Amino acid sequence: MSKASQEGMTAKKGENFDEWYTQVILKAEIADYSPVSGCMVFRPAGYAIWENIQRETDSEFKKSGVKNCYFPIFIPERLLEKEAKHVQGFAPEVAWVTRAGNSELEEKLAIRPTSETVMYEVVSRWIRSWRDMPLRLNQWNNVVRWEFRHPTPFLRSREFLWNEGHSLFATREEADAEREDIMGIYKRVTEGLMALPGYMGKKSKSETFAGAEATYSIEHLLPDGKAIQGPDWHSDGQNFSKAFEIVFVDKDGNNQFAWQNTWALTTREIGVMLAVHSDDKGAVVPPKLAQIQVVVIPIVNDESKRAVLAEAKKLMAKLNGKFRGLLDDRDQLTPGRKFNEWELKGVPLRVEFGPRDMKEKQAVLVRRDTGGKRKVKVADLVDEVGKDLDTIQDNLFRRASEALTKNTHDAWSLDELKGILSKGGGVVRVHWCGEDACEEKMREETGGKVLNIPLDQKPASGKCVVCGKDAPTVANFGRSY
Amino acid sequence: MSKASQEGMTAKKGENFDEWYTQVILKAEIADYSPVSGCMVFRPAGYAIWENIQRETDSEFKKSGVKNCYFPIFIPERLLEKEAKHVQGFAPEVAWVTRAGNSELEEKLAIRPTSETVMYEVVSRWIRSWRDMPLRLNQWNNVVRWEFRHPTPFLRSREFLWNEGHSLFATREEADAEREDIMGIYKRVTEGLMALPGYMGKKSKSETFAGAEATYSIEHLLPDGKAIQGPDWHSDGQNFSKAFEIVFVDKDGNNQFAWQNTWALTTREIGVMLAVHSDDKGAVVPPKLAQIQVVVIPIVNDESKRAVLAEAKKLMAKLNGKFRGLLDDRDQLTPGRKFNEWELKGVPLRVEFGPRDMKEKQAVLVRRDTGGKRKVKVADLVDEVGKDLDTIQDNLFRRASEALTKNTHDAWSLDELKGILSKGGGVVRVHWCGEDACEEKMREETGGKVLNIPLDQKPASGKCVVCGKDAPTVANFGRSY
Repeated sequence: MSKASQEGMTAKKGENFDEWYTQVILKAEIADYSPVSGCMVFRPAGYAIWENIQRETDSEFKKSGVKNCYFPIFIPERLLEKEAKHVQGFAPEVAWVTRAGNSELEEKLAIRPTSETVMYEVVSRWIRSWRDMPLRLNQWNNVVRWEFRHPTPFLRSREFLWNEGHSLFATREEADAEREDIMGIYKRVTEGLMALPGYMGKKSKSETFAGAEATYSIEHLLPDGKAIQGPDWHSDGQNFSKAFEIVFVDKDGNNQFAWQNTWALTTREIGVMLAVHSDDKGAVVPPKLAQIQVVVIPIVNDESKRAVLAEAKKLMAKLNGKFRGLLDDRDQLTPGRKFNEWELKGVPLRVEFGPRDMKEKQAVLVRRDTGGKRKVKVADLVDEVGKDLDTIQDNLFRRASEALTKNTHDAWSLDELKGILSKGGGVVRVHWCGEDACEEKMREETGGKVLNIPLDQKPASGKCVVCGKDAPTVANFGRSY
Repeated sequence: MSKASQEGMTAKKGENFDEWYTQVILKAEIADYSPVSGCMVFRPAGYAIWENIQRETDSEFKKSGVKNCYFPIFIPERLLEKEAKHVQGFAPEVAWVTRAGNSELEEKLAIRPTSETVMYEVVSRWIRSWRDMPLRLNQWNNVVRWEFRHPTPFLRSREFLWNEGHSLFATREEADAEREDIMGIYKRVTEGLMALPGYMGKKSKSETFAGAEATYSIEHLLPDGKAIQGPDWHSDGQNFSKAFEIVFVDKDGNNQFAWQNTWALTTREIGVMLAVHSDDKGAVVPPKLAQIQVVVIPIVNDESKRAVLAEAKKLMAKLNGKFRGLLDDRDQLTPGRKFNEWELKGVPLRVEFGPRDMKEKQAVLVRRDTGGKRKVKVADLVDEVGKDLDTIQDNLFRRASEALTKNTHDAWSLDELKGILSKGGGVVRVHWCGEDACEEKMREETGGKVLNIPLDQKPASGKCVVCGKDAPTVANFGRSY
């Protein structure tokens, strides 16, 4: 496989999405398979993307008053069972530790699929009065959900990395007000860094997180027409605080249960981002997240070699003050091989620099997203590279937004909905009355599901595509990953 | 327990070290017990220390050419068994996943106690030629070692956080040369950030890492006279590359096995640091790692309240541009209560600011390490706070270094060694011939062990304290945590 990974792409995005996606991830050396079924390896280029996402997101969390912490990866079985719906939702996917060394454990331990239960048991000791809140905690950690469906690196992995935010408030109003804050951060991170558009909305009851009262999500669209859920935020009400006795004395001296939210962004986003932007040449990574933003490739012949390399090093030094850059001065490869390799790996911008460029004090910039080339003066190089990186970042978001818009449809009947989903998929806006039975019917008939219900809709006339009752607002519907 | 944690310290460092240490950690809200036996919770003040350590260490790793990555937490049993000594060393402490959902797993999975085996199986696919190396990988992750000894937060925890570096080289010379690089980073991090002195040296054969050819460590000394191992670096030679067939084509076209090293720094260091610096008032945290470096406490009466608070906010804004600061403007607590709370929590510097200070355009700085107070002009506040923080950082290292020197002894006979270790402990330099049998004898007679053997010793005349043979160099010996 490693040999194969050193060759170029053979699958086409438009022909065989699954095979193409796997080739991009493996051949660009972003991820690798592991000896553990369903678990992946983040290679340095892939982990660097996550580090860049973490750094920016974490800085926004901290500005907003969130504090990081770390809780054990293990959850004793009796704790996981404390919130009935929660355990129902997760038990089928839990990996259990039953032995340590040569001993059988007295109580088996779940590997955290999410940390509500182990956190709230402890946090209940930290909360006494309304003054102890808001308490907004976050962990950057690894979680395990032993899914039995076909695993795919990033998109469905039995172990994944994420942020899990857990916040506690003294009133429902304060708890609810956190939604805009957190979903705003997730929107800026997905749109601004990952160049990923999406639809924000509220999940239907049947798709709400196990143990929560309401779930809000950003839903993305994959190039194969399937929707996929992005980051989410859950209003837990007092469900967990009642189960874990998180009680505080309010301003009036009365005992109250805390109001809680949870929120998460996972490494799945990296897969969505790569799937959306990459092409038949390989990975395309948005400049703000790329491990290497700009690669300088000297083009030399025997007589010019020393001078061109010396000059290229100077260019690189200038660029490295502002960007994450790499000078590819490997001797044994032709410039053409290097172009292919860095295109495959998704470096956003390439600087070509040869003897003629040196003479004319210029360099050639080649964009990964469009293949567009232009000459710039060496004196302006840093500025021009900065401009191109910004343009590429913007272009990726614009291109992805256009694709999302193009693949968003309206359906006015169940037949129309079925027709659209059977021909290419996408997101379909349908009037739906909100009843479980109608949702179930749509699901059965189309193989899709309610993705979420956009907020701030202006009620308009419309009838539920299933039962025909008045349904003044629409839901986003689609086949989902 | 939470109620107790809100009260001040009662145990004394000099009287009951274990109880005192636990009180510091819990009452300063740095860590908490968890519902999982032997696993701890990193509260925000504790996790912030780790984030600060990570940030600085990671930046040094990256400058040195190390790349971060992430491998699965699970290791299939057959992989763990591939290197015979390695599995022998770790098997007694491995936590095993045997079930997922309702299914029994076909092959049980170890939770990584360390990642050599799962990494090298995969990395062997990434290495073809000498050009693919050096490959220097690192993970910041969680590992589990199910120790059956008494757990203590940070110092001995069944799950802990660490960096695990794994590097591959084409020659033994290059591999060996990495030691100074990595141990240099660890020395700067422990001394410069944690203000923790230590003795660097090579481990004896019996204390070498399971699967390695040689281990180098930094050894610290706890206030109770026990030594404790800090960060380490292992030369693995070709042990793992032979077991995992990490083969490459060298410059001459011949197949060779790669040369490997591994290296780690764990969250145990946080515990050592707190144990060494803290005192009977609570935690003392070195300024470079403290979550809050400076706390401003306004001292108000009814008439001055508004004006003093407004001015204190301005002071805080100035300080927050350069330091991690907090304005404690809580209404319900007296200044005295606040002083005690922030001393307990280990904030290095306190700024007191009252109506008279406002009038005289001054503020009072109070150092956590010495209790020393001084008045400074408000106009100079930022500079003076910076100076005090530097002074505190230096003072903590100086104080700890003096304590280490004071508790380092020379012993010229086994009786002398026994005598020193039975009265207060410490690090004892003894001439030892290097033979396993003599090491074992010292261990049996004293309950201590060879900590490490300092490098760059000038050979001097000396006889092994056990067998009396020539032993021109000394070993650091001590009871160890």
